[in-house]
Amino acid sequence: MEHPDFCAAPPPSGEPLFARSRQPEGRVVSFGGAEVGGEALCIMAGPCSVETPEQLARTARAAAEGGAHVLRGGAFKPRTSPYAFRGLGAEGLELLAQARLETGLPVVTEVMDARHLDLVCRYADALQIGSRNMQNYTLLEEAGRTGMPVLLKRGMAATLDEFLYAAEYVLATGNPNVVLCERGIRTFEPAARNTLDLNAVPILKRRTHLPVVVDPSHGTGHAWMAPAMALAAVAAGADGLLVEMHAAPETALCDGEQSLSPEAFREMMRALEAVAAALGRSLAPPVCA
Amino acid sequence: MEHPDFCAAPPPSGEPLFARSRQPEGRVVSFGGAEVGGEALCIMAGPCSVETPEQLARTARAAAEGGAHVLRGGAFKPRTSPYAFRGLGAEGLELLAQARLETGLPVVTEVMDARHLDLVCRYADALQIGSRNMQNYTLLEEAGRTGMPVLLKRGMAATLDEFLYAAEYVLATGNPNVVLCERGIRTFEPAARNTLDLNAVPILKRRTHLPVVVDPSHGTGHAWMAPAMALAAVAAGADGLLVEMHAAPETALCDGEQSLSPEAFREMMRALEAVAAALGRSLAPPVCA
Amino acid sequence: MEHPDFCAAPPPSGEPLFARSRQPEGRVVSFGGAEVGGEALCIMAGPCSVETPEQLARTARAAAEGGAHVLRGGAFKPRTSPYAFRGLGAEGLELLAQARLETGLPVVTEVMDARHLDLVCRYADALQIGSRNMQNYTLLEEAGRTGMPVLLKRGMAATLDEFLYAAEYVLATGNPNVVLCERGIRTFEPAARNTLDLNAVPILKRRTHLPVVVDPSHGTGHAWMAPAMALAAVAAGADGLLVEMHAAPETALCDGEQSLSPEAFREMMRALEAVAAALGRSLAPPVCA
Amino acid sequence: MEHPDFCAAPPPSGEPLFARSRQPEGRVVSFGGAEVGGEALCIMAGPCSVETPEQLARTARAAAEGGAHVLRGGAFKPRTSPYAFRGLGAEGLELLAQARLETGLPVVTEVMDARHLDLVCRYADALQIGSRNMQNYTLLEEAGRTGMPVLLKRGMAATLDEFLYAAEYVLATGNPNVVLCERGIRTFEPAARNTLDLNAVPILKRRTHLPVVVDPSHGTGHAWMAPAMALAAVAAGADGLLVEMHAAPETALCDGEQSLSPEAFREMMRALEAVAAALGRSLAPPVCA
Repeated sequence: MEHPDFCAAPPPSGEPLFARSRQPEGRVVSFGGAEVGGEALCIMAGPCSVETPEQLARTARAAAEGGAHVLRGGAFKPRTSPYAFRGLGAEGLELLAQARLETGLPVVTEVMDARHLDLVCRYADALQIGSRNMQNYTLLEEAGRTGMPVLLKRGMAATLDEFLYAAEYVLATGNPNVVLCERGIRTFEPAARNTLDLNAVPILKRRTHLPVVVDPSHGTGHAWMAPAMALAAVAAGADGLLVEMHAAPETALCDGEQSLSPEAFREMMRALEAVAAALGRSLAPPVCA
Repeated sequence: MEHPDFCAAPPPSGEPLFARSRQPEGRVVSFGGAEVGGEALCIMAGPCSVETPEQLARTARAAAEGGAHVLRGGAFKPRTSPYAFRGLGAEGLELLAQARLETGLPVVTEVMDARHLDLVCRYADALQIGSRNMQNYTLLEEAGRTGMPVLLKRGMAATLDEFLYAAEYVLATGNPNVVLCERGIRTFEPAARNTLDLNAVPILKRRTHLPVVVDPSHGTGHAWMAPAMALAAVAAGADGLLVEMHAAPETALCDGEQSLSPEAFREMMRALEAVAAALGRSLAPPVCA
Repeated sequence: MEHPDFCAAPPPSGEPLFARSRQPEGRVVSFGGAEVGGEALCIMAGPCSVETPEQLARTARAAAEGGAHVLRGGAFKPRTSPYAFRGLGAEGLELLAQARLETGLPVVTEVMDARHLDLVCRYADALQIGSRNMQNYTLLEEAGRTGMPVLLKRGMAATLDEFLYAAEYVLATGNPNVVLCERGIRTFEPAARNTLDLNAVPILKRRTHLPVVVDPSHGTGHAWMAPAMALAAVAAGADGLLVEMHAAPETALCDGEQSLSPEAFREMMRALEAVAAALGRSLAPPVCA
Repeated sequence: MEHPDFCAAPPPSGEPLFARSRQPEGRVVSFGGAEVGGEALCIMAGPCSVETPEQLARTARAAAEGGAHVLRGGAFKPRTSPYAFRGLGAEGLELLAQARLETGLPVVTEVMDARHLDLVCRYADALQIGSRNMQNYTLLEEAGRTGMPVLLKRGMAATLDEFLYAAEYVLATGNPNVVLCERGIRTFEPAARNTLDLNAVPILKRRTHLPVVVDPSHGTGHAWMAPAMALAAVAAGADGLLVEMHAAPETALCDGEQSLSPEAFREMMRALEAVAAALGRSLAPPVCA
């Protein structure tokens, strides 16, 4: 009889694997030439979803020219309604790989289904697991077993404890390369799409050695707010950012309102550079294609 | 090349499939002799997780004798920590099927991974999709395609709109048999495990023709509170309940604090019968093995 | 020099004054012939605000004829904007006293300012302290010192612990007559004005001997939802209700959407009577003018 | 007959008084030599409560030496329990005035009761209205009528809209000197005392011309977190900070866990200076006694 593997990993002796005490100096996660968790900040930018060859090429070029270190973009999109645009799938992955070739930027993209892992791993440099799937334990473990770096986004109502133990699911497979991403939580406040919880940054940095990045695009829902909150995230101690950028935000198929234009992205990067320096950090050097 | 199926269902013309207007009299979902959504209330009871043959047999017998209509019990358990007990898996499913044989109660059990669907469908009468997976769209669609009734639990921070559209993912596969379950949301209040949102009951009943049940066990986290909230749920208009019961709650491997003893369950059923009658409803007749 | 009185009451020895252990059988609070906290349910009904002599007279008559035991109505209204209608003030109090004369119903009305206490006490039978003032400690203590019964509404984000300690401010003045009112808390869910937290009912009843009533009008924001949630509140163990009713809801100056019409109120009372009986409780007998 | 004044202010024509459009360049609020809302950041520091002459003198001196511009300290303390220390009252005010004399720092202190306004105005340079009283409209209006600058803290579950309209109550009295203070909101996350909502900063700065400051002490509940969140607040665009500092935090009668030591305060100020410069702002020059 088919017997699915549902056995838990044996608990480690002592602290959980994510505990700061296991790597007090902090962990640096590397992929495709980018590094997250060191002194230098890692900026991941790109469109909410891959839409067309031209859109992605233009946006990726603008990201690279603006100083981004990683290209983000969705080929598989989780959507509240089954009738919304759910991404280009495999075709989107091919476009992302093409954009990497042209710009030199490594690619992080979301995976929603363990059965897509083989496919996504063929194209991406790091796997994103989204908020809705933060406690999809099957996906966490299967993603962990690929050995690929995992960018794990906090669930909309996940406590930091639950967030860390979701990361533990990946770590327990033997894959130490997890990057945590705060992206806003759900509260009563309607003025922004989510409430960006920057308290999470110092708390996570104290509790874990894993790198912590912040997504000010989903954390605010507004392109005009994202740069201010990006600066705040870095001042709070974040190791990097995940930002939505689009060559032409007003035409985006999703999240246009929260996507930076190339100009706004460049302006944000200039401000980030100054703030990083004031904090004794730097922006990682630009990638050369 | 492998090309994953990520195409959205075509949107229906007019209202979403869940809309009340599509079946104004309300839908009755049936499985294994049980019915949810009619005049008679459907009570689903059983342990958080299947632990041992004896524990399940005793609990199932107590549920049947107490007047339950469906046996619930977890073979695959989502757990915050990867090191916690995650259920007996296939063995647990066999025990559930055995208990059905002995008591006549149909079985609902959680499925967390689309790759387990074949296995779970061989044993269960209805599939439960848990809170953490409410927006695991892959799982929703694959579960929908099995044709089995789906008991869908609301996510901890899901709006009712998101909850209904998660159900739409199942309905859009052509499977009309979804039961919605309110099980408490996450708020600032620490006195209970969750805040049971009974406002959800009249709102959902107005917006959808799907049956609505309530889980007062997770919605409170305390066995002493569950009966009061069960009565409240029925008074608010719920079509049934999902309650945790254990032959010996003090020995339970998980959720013992919120599991009713057989005596407490019987007492709750007597009170429910009176309240149901006052509302012009009834408890469905007991199942005979 | 003027020396304001800011000294704390001496803490009681042992449990706080609100503790159930201090009066295990529960406290009955009486005012103007009404009783809250006994076996019989106490229903308080009336308009959000006193608007005109005719509006109040018609609404009060409908409340009395429908079986209400207390007339509620606002003369002083807390409003988010300083430019909104803030009530008729002293004139509103006179109209409430007039309505009491005509119907025999005792009056509960909100006081927002300690300097209005003399005035309000001249007209009202019980003082309401609203959600926004739940932690206005000055007001709590001054209201306590009047010796009048106090209907204390839970703050929008107050934990039950904070709620009970707000009541303790009144009790510590030597005034034992506090009625607690759950009226909905603030959550992320936009489908209702507030999330009615019925878990609060069994928790409060276990922790305190004070009577607990529920406001399904503010707890939902919709007149069509209020009756279902009123039944649920009683099933959860509430000792009474505070409901908004208006002789002509569509013309109300505030909260019209959540105010019951006289017909809807009567229908709710019939359903309440049946549910109360099923629970071994009753509606208090109607008041005769 | 005594007729309380409850009349609303006449609404202004056009936008509310708080609207950015009424003073697009932003308002600078001045008191006792300090300025909030200009290019230079204003840092308000001091103990949660005034405890003893020596405690206040030492803390005030450390604040001044560390570069603070305003001394904060509570003489009247709102406390969840009536039995907790509620401040020294008038004696505390005298100590604050004495500390101003010695350090040159203007004083902001909380007022909880409109009847204390005369007294507090005799000693303080600005009036603080606390979170629990954000919708105590009587207090807002009476405080407004004193003509003193008002530091208004956001309620624990207040939307930004409600916060702005609470400020409007002060502005509508003709007093234009309101400073808004974000101090954390209540969410499900237990890892910090509150969730500091820095999204509020850019949103408020866009909607109003009033200065915005942030309280990272209450916003986190932990002294070790406050400096990181202070930097983040300034990076997000705040005009200043309100921080708890104590000459000997481990002996504080309240909030010791979230109070900075003098050393930690000085270190935070050095980091703030660098970040402010990176943002094209500065710390206001130190005050000379």
